[in-house]
Amino acid sequence: MSELPLAAIDRIIRKSTGIRVSESAAKELSVFLEEEGMRIAQQAAVFSKHAGRKTVTDEDIRLALKKQ
Amino acid sequence: MSELPLAAIDRIIRKSTGIRVSESAAKELSVFLEEEGMRIAQQAAVFSKHAGRKTVTDEDIRLALKKQ
Repeated sequence: MSELPLAAIDRIIRKSTGIRVSESAAKELSVFLEEEGMRIAQQAAVFSKHAGRKTVTDEDIRLALKKQ
Repeated sequence: MSELPLAAIDRIIRKSTGIRVSESAAKELSVFLEEEGMRIAQQAAVFSKHAGRKTVTDEDIRLALKKQ
């Protein structure tokens, strides 16, 4: 629950809004994006296994994103 | 479109699935999460301005997440 660097999240918010960001805002978004990433990864892993593979590929991720 | 370090995305996928991840899979997920982050940030910035503030706060992010 702390893989995404806050500095990166801060830059994403500042770049896309042009305004300042509180540290707690960056943390809040970071937690959400990390959970979202885990959820998508778990769905993608189901597709990998279904296809008889032991590696998650970009195709698995795309399928997981479509299924949302 | 390249703020989130691929190594972090790779760890999120491996930790939550326990299986290997292709580099293209990590890239695919990274692009999605970054776009998602930008979309949420832009919505949060609308709420900041509406509240007469010049800083995005965690409350703005939470409201933007609810509105999804």
